Amino acid sequence: MKPVKVGLLGLGTVGGGTVTVLARNAVEISRRAGRGIEISHAAARAYDPDRIQGLDRIGRIGDDAFAIVNDPDVQIVVELIGGYSPARELVLQAIANGKHVVTANKALIATHGNEIFAAARDRGVMVGFEAAVAGGIPIIKALREGLAANHIEWIAGIINGTGNFILTEMRDKQRDFADVLAEAQALGYAEADPTFDIEGIDAAHKLTILSSLAFGVPLRFEHCFTEGIAKVGALDVAYAAELGYRIKHLGITRRSAGGIELRVHPTLIPERRLIANVDGVMNAVLVKGDAVGPTLYYGAGAGALPTASAVVADLVDVVRTLTTDPSNRVPHLAFQPDELADIPSLPMEAVQTAYYLRLSALDQPGVMARIASILADQGISIEAIKQKEPAEGETHVPLVMLTHRVIERQMNTAIAQIEALDSVQGEVTRIRMETLSG
Amino acid sequence: MKPVKVGLLGLGTVGGGTVTVLARNAVEISRRAGRGIEISHAAARAYDPDRIQGLDRIGRIGDDAFAIVNDPDVQIVVELIGGYSPARELVLQAIANGKHVVTANKALIATHGNEIFAAARDRGVMVGFEAAVAGGIPIIKALREGLAANHIEWIAGIINGTGNFILTEMRDKQRDFADVLAEAQALGYAEADPTFDIEGIDAAHKLTILSSLAFGVPLRFEHCFTEGIAKVGALDVAYAAELGYRIKHLGITRRSAGGIELRVHPTLIPERRLIANVDGVMNAVLVKGDAVGPTLYYGAGAGALPTASAVVADLVDVVRTLTTDPSNRVPHLAFQPDELADIPSLPMEAVQTAYYLRLSALDQPGVMARIASILADQGISIEAIKQKEPAEGETHVPLVMLTHRVIERQMNTAIAQIEALDSVQGEVTRIRMETLSG
Repeated sequence: MKPVKVGLLGLGTVGGGTVTVLARNAVEISRRAGRGIEISHAAARAYDPDRIQGLDRIGRIGDDAFAIVNDPDVQIVVELIGGYSPARELVLQAIANGKHVVTANKALIATHGNEIFAAARDRGVMVGFEAAVAGGIPIIKALREGLAANHIEWIAGIINGTGNFILTEMRDKQRDFADVLAEAQALGYAEADPTFDIEGIDAAHKLTILSSLAFGVPLRFEHCFTEGIAKVGALDVAYAAELGYRIKHLGITRRSAGGIELRVHPTLIPERRLIANVDGVMNAVLVKGDAVGPTLYYGAGAGALPTASAVVADLVDVVRTLTTDPSNRVPHLAFQPDELADIPSLPMEAVQTAYYLRLSALDQPGVMARIASILADQGISIEAIKQKEPAEGETHVPLVMLTHRVIERQMNTAIAQIEALDSVQGEVTRIRMETLSG
Repeated sequence: MKPVKVGLLGLGTVGGGTVTVLARNAVEISRRAGRGIEISHAAARAYDPDRIQGLDRIGRIGDDAFAIVNDPDVQIVVELIGGYSPARELVLQAIANGKHVVTANKALIATHGNEIFAAARDRGVMVGFEAAVAGGIPIIKALREGLAANHIEWIAGIINGTGNFILTEMRDKQRDFADVLAEAQALGYAEADPTFDIEGIDAAHKLTILSSLAFGVPLRFEHCFTEGIAKVGALDVAYAAELGYRIKHLGITRRSAGGIELRVHPTLIPERRLIANVDGVMNAVLVKGDAVGPTLYYGAGAGALPTASAVVADLVDVVRTLTTDPSNRVPHLAFQPDELADIPSLPMEAVQTAYYLRLSALDQPGVMARIASILADQGISIEAIKQKEPAEGETHVPLVMLTHRVIERQMNTAIAQIEALDSVQGEVTRIRMETLSG
């Protein structure tokens, strides 16, 4: 089957990321979608060709965005220009021309979404906007589909990475707001004009969208109460910590007796909550449903590739709908049935992990050296050792070690040799260890 | 449009929960799905009619499960019996009869999924199994759709609530495994025969499913390495903590050079990781994609209503596909466009929250009493007060208060009155506070 043809508006951060993800993961994406996805036509005023991997796969690059929404070959328009205008006109024109649309534009959806969705419905086209809220976290899909059984009670989200980075730095380093903001700007985490981020307007756009998805009301950005983080002092962060709280810039929407709350403001939350421990530029959205209880969705809320992850997920959604019969729209195992691969399973003996080891060794000179030499012979290096004091009258002491990563087979050999030592009592307790970072 | 007719197999914990959710949220669910969902026929050997809310809405309850999969009126069969047989025969018969299937049965999918999906594909019906992994967390949807742009690198999950409850209790209370297990059984968190949970078999079923979704390989439960938590000692939990680690029973699947790792075992992980702080019976799945980076999905992994949340989400998925044209399958704002409600937005003045207040007050007798009396007059009660020592030569001291929940309007009044006091210097800093628990 021929690839689906996509027209791309914008080759900035997210546009470039989208080109890269579509190029890099082209095979896997088409194994999932049932069909290739090709950017046949892109438009950008200016872009840096050296910084975008996969640019050579784009059919044609011009500078006229309207040429794309009017290009009869383009089936799906991806709008990554941002802002209100001409994004609104471009999206409406694409819809009028019968094209599906995918956008990452939270300002556009929050303020013109009602109009855009009505037009899309009339014309029978899809508008995907997963990338508009919380970057790569599939929170829109979770709310619209995954939690569809629930009466949603409230949502609280850290949905602006810049604001969260600033508050995290203020806490970790006891620094003042202005100071951290300057650093964030230098690092590129904050815009030269940071108003949208630190005043909460960006978060308000996203919260407006989440609120409508949760409660089934039209988008009403103008009803959102917004308070920024500029007035939070280093002192407040410290006092909150003394009382067992963290300060986060939250977007909160709640269904209460008098109506729907829609508010963005700095908020003290108990430090034991998982969301209180979401730090730096990361985002998280906590959703309370009556059936499911609290669920939390965490990940990167911005950046080229994370946001592109959501843009391309929307593309796959559209392509699956265009391509397959409805009952097989989403393959049972994510990949099309004839695209399942026969990658072998790795036997446990061949798996590489780090280890925690605990054993009971004779409290005598030379014992530790013997153990260390057995480990070294198997290529196992030790990251940390803790030797405990012997209990009164005990000749053996507990010895605890953390090792670096090694193939399990070698660890098995080493453990068998250690257990065979006269100076070691009983079995070696072994628990695998993972950093979960790579 | 007439409601979709569902046949329900099983009225146990999850079956009862499904009946309850469909009854309780009937209006909201049909506003989302575009059509009502009706249980026209259910089968159970035994059930407790007094414990299931909404039972009166079921058309007919019998004890013959095969009568349901052969009932020509039933369009979707929900299998909540569990186990391998007769669940497998029932599901295959339902598919052969052209019915869509929704199941929460992880053992069935992990071991017979390949056969079931092939049959479903031949017959052109859908098989939903969101509830089979991590209960109410929409992790299958996230992997199959939300992260479809990514090359998935690895997944690590806390996917058995019983095991996590035991390890959490061992750490929090320095108790031994056997001891905590007995308590978990008494509380109903662990089965009388806890083998499936504590040996990791249940987790292995779920991990097998996640691995196939991530890497596009057939289901291969028999390749999963499984080690239980029985050998983890209270001592190991304590030593790990001293070294900055927590022990969790993780399911890990990773694409490494030699093949796919598929393993369930106790694992030390750094305590700073979000997933290390997932405690009690809660589940969480951490997914690393090449584009999106790490994302985490957290929520209740078991229980009547959370699991029913996933079952009903699958039902809504099927109903949306059966009912609407493909392009409008999922409404833009989650609810069908003609079902959006005009619930008012609550003005900020009418919102109720707790507050953190900080002010600078004269260090004199009577000042605190004045402030407390202003708050009391507005019906604001104080939860905590911290008064700091005055700095050398300062006549004013910082005063920090946490209040209970109050309407914002009253707090505004109180703050205006406090700021008008001669004994208070400058403005009152006010930050809202939320427990995020209710």
